[in-house]
Amino acid sequence: MAFSTRNCIILIALLLFSTSSSSASPWGKKQKHKPCKELVLYFHDIIYNGKNAGNATSAIVAAPEGANLTILAPQFHFGNIVVFDDPITLDNNLHSNPVGRAQGLYIYDTKNTFTSWLAFSFSLNYTAYKGTINFVGADPILVKTRDISVVGGTGDFFMHRGVATIMTDAFEGEVYFRLRVDIKFYECW
Amino acid sequence: MAFSTRNCIILIALLLFSTSSSSASPWGKKQKHKPCKELVLYFHDIIYNGKNAGNATSAIVAAPEGANLTILAPQFHFGNIVVFDDPITLDNNLHSNPVGRAQGLYIYDTKNTFTSWLAFSFSLNYTAYKGTINFVGADPILVKTRDISVVGGTGDFFMHRGVATIMTDAFEGEVYFRLRVDIKFYECW
Amino acid sequence: MAFSTRNCIILIALLLFSTSSSSASPWGKKQKHKPCKELVLYFHDIIYNGKNAGNATSAIVAAPEGANLTILAPQFHFGNIVVFDDPITLDNNLHSNPVGRAQGLYIYDTKNTFTSWLAFSFSLNYTAYKGTINFVGADPILVKTRDISVVGGTGDFFMHRGVATIMTDAFEGEVYFRLRVDIKFYECW
Repeated sequence: MAFSTRNCIILIALLLFSTSSSSASPWGKKQKHKPCKELVLYFHDIIYNGKNAGNATSAIVAAPEGANLTILAPQFHFGNIVVFDDPITLDNNLHSNPVGRAQGLYIYDTKNTFTSWLAFSFSLNYTAYKGTINFVGADPILVKTRDISVVGGTGDFFMHRGVATIMTDAFEGEVYFRLRVDIKFYECW
Repeated sequence: MAFSTRNCIILIALLLFSTSSSSASPWGKKQKHKPCKELVLYFHDIIYNGKNAGNATSAIVAAPEGANLTILAPQFHFGNIVVFDDPITLDNNLHSNPVGRAQGLYIYDTKNTFTSWLAFSFSLNYTAYKGTINFVGADPILVKTRDISVVGGTGDFFMHRGVATIMTDAFEGEVYFRLRVDIKFYECW
Repeated sequence: MAFSTRNCIILIALLLFSTSSSSASPWGKKQKHKPCKELVLYFHDIIYNGKNAGNATSAIVAAPEGANLTILAPQFHFGNIVVFDDPITLDNNLHSNPVGRAQGLYIYDTKNTFTSWLAFSFSLNYTAYKGTINFVGADPILVKTRDISVVGGTGDFFMHRGVATIMTDAFEGEVYFRLRVDIKFYECW
């Protein structure tokens, strides 16, 4: 039987479908596991720079010798610790009604490129979910998508574990950035 | 058959029993899961304020611009990082024989109310248990009970996971506070 | 039948074998569980001391009142927070080809002895493994072997959990130290 154009189109469609429905990881592999729960959320970080006390949602609180607390440190900000309390929204609009707060710390942790390390919690309180989600992981911010660990949860996320994929959705200079977080739980209770 | 006073008393007793034996979470839901192990412990934090070097068990080590390290920062202490090494006791008495140490850090992480974020370990070393328990989570300290994640353990708590419910059991000004921690493990090995 | 010398030797050999193949924990107990994956790696930490900017891989970024950021604090360094970005090697040679980076923070957290607390990630990128491993735990550095929790992973370590045993393999003064990390995963996916 001849391989018709129609068969070819169906084959391509199937291939495309299988690609888009699998979850590619930043490590270039397809995950074979399906999440038992998934959430996509955004959070918005405005770093205090000495002039934006009203709007700032985070502050540099530690820096290596010779650096200060209103300008990120030289050498790719190596050594800065930032404490944050950022609004979480369902879409990418800073002014949307927040559904919770992202709270914790991040560190700039490399001297010759921009990488950070994250330890924080989402406290969610809206119609769909009430509870907390706890995250820990490396965040090489120049990579398009980065995976961190979901190490536990409470409330509606009681004992959950999973992996969260982070993308920098937007940024303005070194003061504002917005992260898109795709949280996939693989252990639900 | 008439609904007698005796039946009524039995009913009330059953209701009371079911309430007290279920574990209410701060999110207002009963948990359907039973812990495989449970521990109630207290720990005691005395913040260094420049005058109590002998007794202090914790110190402010980071603060936002304009704040210092012997007085908690203005704006609800936002940005302070405190490192602690607190005694753990079996009852609520600071002077009881310690059964271990609570070690790690907490952050004050909100500008318009008191909330903190915790990452720490219990190192227990007494007759009943030897091992460590590792915790991460948001701690909205003005809420009566707060749930954080037990993300792992070693020794007698090898590979354990669970949820810990924290209550502020007592405090004196901004220098001393005592936390009651009800640790419920749901994964034991 | 007489208990021959040969039998005795076999018995001793069996005993030795069972000892070396069981994993002793710092708490003095044999683990009854077998790891599903195991990795032994080294990482190398060179603390910035004001003079070694070129070689340093870590920096003191927070300290209690009265201390500074180029010398570890008095009182057993209590309150120091160090941010690090250390090379990981397969053997104990600082100059071996790195297979990844250890990134995160450690705290000195006791006033009357040397203990620390760790929260960090391994980002591995070599032939055998690509992915991250996330760690949290107490590290009483004067004890020969210390166990911390592996709280999650990504990439080749997707959703993994386990226990890592840390040993101080070498140190030079208070500037360089090398840690040997024996990572045993008990949950692989």
